[in-house]
Amino acid sequence: MSWHRPHLLDIESLSADEILTVLDTAKAFKAVGERAIKKVPALRGRTVVNLFIEPSTRTRTSFELSEQRLSADIINFTAEASSLKKGETLKDTARNLEALNVDFIVIRHSAAGAAHFLSRVLNTHVINAGDGAHEHPTQALLDAFTIRERKGKIEGLNVTILGDILFSRVARSNIWALTKLGAKVTLCGPSTLVPRTFEQMGCRVTHDVDAALRDADIIHLLRIQHERQRKTMFPSIGEYTTLFGLNKARLAKARPDALIMHPGPVNRGVEIDNEIADSARSLILEQVTNGIAVRMAVLFLVNGGKGPQEIAAG
Amino acid sequence: MSWHRPHLLDIESLSADEILTVLDTAKAFKAVGERAIKKVPALRGRTVVNLFIEPSTRTRTSFELSEQRLSADIINFTAEASSLKKGETLKDTARNLEALNVDFIVIRHSAAGAAHFLSRVLNTHVINAGDGAHEHPTQALLDAFTIRERKGKIEGLNVTILGDILFSRVARSNIWALTKLGAKVTLCGPSTLVPRTFEQMGCRVTHDVDAALRDADIIHLLRIQHERQRKTMFPSIGEYTTLFGLNKARLAKARPDALIMHPGPVNRGVEIDNEIADSARSLILEQVTNGIAVRMAVLFLVNGGKGPQEIAAG
Amino acid sequence: MSWHRPHLLDIESLSADEILTVLDTAKAFKAVGERAIKKVPALRGRTVVNLFIEPSTRTRTSFELSEQRLSADIINFTAEASSLKKGETLKDTARNLEALNVDFIVIRHSAAGAAHFLSRVLNTHVINAGDGAHEHPTQALLDAFTIRERKGKIEGLNVTILGDILFSRVARSNIWALTKLGAKVTLCGPSTLVPRTFEQMGCRVTHDVDAALRDADIIHLLRIQHERQRKTMFPSIGEYTTLFGLNKARLAKARPDALIMHPGPVNRGVEIDNEIADSARSLILEQVTNGIAVRMAVLFLVNGGKGPQEIAAG
Repeated sequence: MSWHRPHLLDIESLSADEILTVLDTAKAFKAVGERAIKKVPALRGRTVVNLFIEPSTRTRTSFELSEQRLSADIINFTAEASSLKKGETLKDTARNLEALNVDFIVIRHSAAGAAHFLSRVLNTHVINAGDGAHEHPTQALLDAFTIRERKGKIEGLNVTILGDILFSRVARSNIWALTKLGAKVTLCGPSTLVPRTFEQMGCRVTHDVDAALRDADIIHLLRIQHERQRKTMFPSIGEYTTLFGLNKARLAKARPDALIMHPGPVNRGVEIDNEIADSARSLILEQVTNGIAVRMAVLFLVNGGKGPQEIAAG
Repeated sequence: MSWHRPHLLDIESLSADEILTVLDTAKAFKAVGERAIKKVPALRGRTVVNLFIEPSTRTRTSFELSEQRLSADIINFTAEASSLKKGETLKDTARNLEALNVDFIVIRHSAAGAAHFLSRVLNTHVINAGDGAHEHPTQALLDAFTIRERKGKIEGLNVTILGDILFSRVARSNIWALTKLGAKVTLCGPSTLVPRTFEQMGCRVTHDVDAALRDADIIHLLRIQHERQRKTMFPSIGEYTTLFGLNKARLAKARPDALIMHPGPVNRGVEIDNEIADSARSLILEQVTNGIAVRMAVLFLVNGGKGPQEIAAG
Repeated sequence: MSWHRPHLLDIESLSADEILTVLDTAKAFKAVGERAIKKVPALRGRTVVNLFIEPSTRTRTSFELSEQRLSADIINFTAEASSLKKGETLKDTARNLEALNVDFIVIRHSAAGAAHFLSRVLNTHVINAGDGAHEHPTQALLDAFTIRERKGKIEGLNVTILGDILFSRVARSNIWALTKLGAKVTLCGPSTLVPRTFEQMGCRVTHDVDAALRDADIIHLLRIQHERQRKTMFPSIGEYTTLFGLNKARLAKARPDALIMHPGPVNRGVEIDNEIADSARSLILEQVTNGIAVRMAVLFLVNGGKGPQEIAAG
């Protein structure tokens, strides 16, 4: 048990021990989600604001359920509804939330660094729910939890991340988490989206998809953001699917025990075939389930919770 | 007491006994709504998702209050906010909700059969809150509850449903419920909207409004959907009001104890005159009140609740 | 302790004793907001509808937190989402909410008199959260609370309200509250927006900003509504800032212990300089904090709560 941080801002600054503390705590919370009464009183009378300046139904819903199951009071504050429209700055919005005696701010923002910024100007706990192309730490933690649960360990595993790495906060947070925990990470995708500079983060970079899949224990697919993909970097969806989409033929060349992950929502028929997405080798829905337990663990730990023992007792 | 279903998908497949079990259970819950503390712990720690892919403030608010009064945790998931915009299918959305360990999905959808579909692919309880022009079962149950409460019985009553029957899920569910409970149902409205085929459901069909009203115990008006009415079937609002709108002259020809119902929201001056809508013979607001009790009963029963005795005890 | 009203509709009709009862009750609730568990059971099992027909994230969030901390069940009902779009009247919407056995309606509406109207047609408690250019009573109560907390009293203080007085419900409610409590109120701003008729409310009216600031204990700035300012009354934002904006040079001519208030959100660089808004003399964030305590007090009192003693005991 080693966690003494008031915030979760990124994976980059965490130690392997801290990451493992989150995973161990999440394991205890996963059991709560399987009970008929899926609720513990850990955050009763505490207020959480979900400050989503960039829309996200899935991540927000996952956080909201996590907060409900910890018995917190919840305010959902989205960009559409907010007075940010009237020209108010993020700092003013955040200071106003702090003045409301809010205890936690879960922030999703299109600007990299938004969560770090809030943690410097506020006295509330801050959880980064995705900041620009920078980090999405709870996604990486739930991915690590899912891998460890299914493979029994993370150290020594080969994990291939496939897709648009350059603009992906999911990729960045996963690279940090997996390399800290001792996995060997391979990045693959079109060369415009997977530059060699990622080798500096300790990854292998290849543009040969068969090579990337050959010895992978975990194949982690990223969503193709085709609604906002820059044309200059990305010729066409059809070409991406042909060259990098995970289909049966391509998967047949991977190890038979390789498991498939995806942060969702899945573009069926683009980055992954229907049949594979729904197969027993797909961990996609387990990732969703584990997201709640991991987010409960993060909220619990930044609040000063003392780990699994306390949850079992409470 | 006879209820063993995990879902409420339609009225068509229910027996008269099952419908009466809902009404009896709702009666016990109605008393809860009249207390200062309008809350029972029946669904504490259970999660309900209100999945409204078609907008509806009234029905959603009624469900949300029902869920709050059963102490459930609630997630509101509307089409506008959802990742359905990103091209995700209903099936993926629903599977993701299931992966979040959600216990109940209350679904409103523009496609007939959406609730049945979810019940086949998911392990959660599913409540149909309106699917296309197919069914709106909780509306029919609250209507039956209201009639029984005011008339003391349903069997043998003459119920006239007036308006756009063809495209109305409210009409369909009411026809099933009322005929199963032994009422005689008359349908009336413009011939394009009230075809003779409804006689196969055991109803009398007439396009003569005076004949339809003459011996009615209950006059059930449907809302004219003038914002989306197809022009080819419907000459003009003014013409509808002249020919079928419920005004004093027309009501004078009905029985003096005939009561008036409407699922709301009312188009005052279109399908009903102001004065009649607000009169002592109008049950419109009682329908709204009873909606909460009926929806609490449905959630309670599909969850395995054992009927009125248990509510009184709890 | 003198409060026997079922509603809070305006400040105009309140006595000084009633206002002071709210402030005393709010003082007890402020202590609740500073505890780790910021919750009292006063409204458990009671339902509050936040009926915001005019958008407002701040005021709605403040009410929602107040309601959560009183353990109420909450329905947020905004114009965008509501069936008002389908042509339903405010009266029908309100009667439907009443039929849902709602206990409190907190209403924000663009029409002056909307809250009074609801209180006449409904049996629920009604709280005015701002009605057109008429009143915003909870804002005035939280402003009075903040002044009394910092200055120790209100009687005999000089309060200058600066800005668009004519169209401001905040100004109107503040004028009523402050004059009832014995403060001397000065109004200042462009002559088109601060007509002499306000002298009939017992205020001094001046268009000379230095004169207005000279002996002020409190400088209350109003937000310039530049997104909807009528051009005929208001030459330009730049000109307003030059003539009436609070900058260091202008503030230097005021008393050194003069404190600055603003209902938010602040237009930095328009009605107030950045540095002054963030200085120790600014009470802007204290106003936000106190808003929760005051709104808890109002909900508690209209519900028949018996004042500070009861809160301490509960």
